[in-house]
Amino acid sequence: MKKDIGTVTPLYPAPDLIVGTYNENGAPNGMAAAWGGVCCSEPPCVAVAVRKERHTYGAISRREAFTVNIPSEDLVEQADLFGLCSGAEHDKFALTKLTAVKGTKVDAPTIEEFPISMECRLIKTVEIGSHVQFIGEVVACWVDDDCLDEKGSPSPEKVRPVIFMPQSGRYYRMGSEIARAYKAGRKFLEEEKR
Amino acid sequence: MKKDIGTVTPLYPAPDLIVGTYNENGAPNGMAAAWGGVCCSEPPCVAVAVRKERHTYGAISRREAFTVNIPSEDLVEQADLFGLCSGAEHDKFALTKLTAVKGTKVDAPTIEEFPISMECRLIKTVEIGSHVQFIGEVVACWVDDDCLDEKGSPSPEKVRPVIFMPQSGRYYRMGSEIARAYKAGRKFLEEEKR
Repeated sequence: MKKDIGTVTPLYPAPDLIVGTYNENGAPNGMAAAWGGVCCSEPPCVAVAVRKERHTYGAISRREAFTVNIPSEDLVEQADLFGLCSGAEHDKFALTKLTAVKGTKVDAPTIEEFPISMECRLIKTVEIGSHVQFIGEVVACWVDDDCLDEKGSPSPEKVRPVIFMPQSGRYYRMGSEIARAYKAGRKFLEEEKR
Repeated sequence: MKKDIGTVTPLYPAPDLIVGTYNENGAPNGMAAAWGGVCCSEPPCVAVAVRKERHTYGAISRREAFTVNIPSEDLVEQADLFGLCSGAEHDKFALTKLTAVKGTKVDAPTIEEFPISMECRLIKTVEIGSHVQFIGEVVACWVDDDCLDEKGSPSPEKVRPVIFMPQSGRYYRMGSEIARAYKAGRKFLEEEKR
């Protein structure tokens, strides 16, 4: 039996993204974002939602660039720090001892120790309400050598991403594989043919 | 050592969302979407990206409504079927034997057997490229009784959502809890104070 619990958004799972930018003074900063994801295939784009009062809001608007960095589970504490304080008051890279690396194609820094970093060129800004959505075209995707499979693609088992469940405020690790996409449901089509 | 693997989007994790709509003839339909997530807190909004050639594109545009349904891992095969064929040619609810329930606040159906279903009123349509992003305000959120914790909130452990890893094309189950958000990183701030 289902029950209406109101206007809430338990959209499981959400990612734990650290959005990299440069402050007005050129110092690297990062913001934790769970409201984000891929939003287009051609061109390949990702969207991140940012509150206007965030330090990152001005940073993305000014330089029209940001990066999206995916932490592995062993860096979950460092990733969490990026959601705990403002880049206006704290140097989050100094606090976590993580390394900011200048983007090669956009004016924003990536986080060296995180296994995946996408460089994004801002192509659209969408006003919604409390949040503004920044849509960025991915122009480079940096992946740790050790996290690539034999075909040169990132392997989820090697990346071991952090999974955030909205509302519960908890981070989880990924579990085991349960099925192949575009295959698991074929049996229903085969049954129809009989 | 990190390596640029090009303009790809391994944004881990992505959700496995089934977007519910009514076809032109009033029949319920659903589409699997991994390109989606929460995009605003006030008003609470979710975004789903849909290719213009999809049957769902016209359905959302016409009725200005959709639902976002979260499968549990034991329904991963049924969820996958929604990504395997078009609602123009197949009755996906008949194929999977899932139950479409008329939305109470918007003109779109929810999926009864899925533990979480959000009813969304279309508030914005964003043209990007291959995909159009539909932004919907969540006006109701239906959660299975059995998936609520003692405070009446959805419990990720009870919902057992399906996790999709872009590029790898595989579904995973969620793993164990690794940390509390807004807590795990506090030690870095405390170290700074010393």
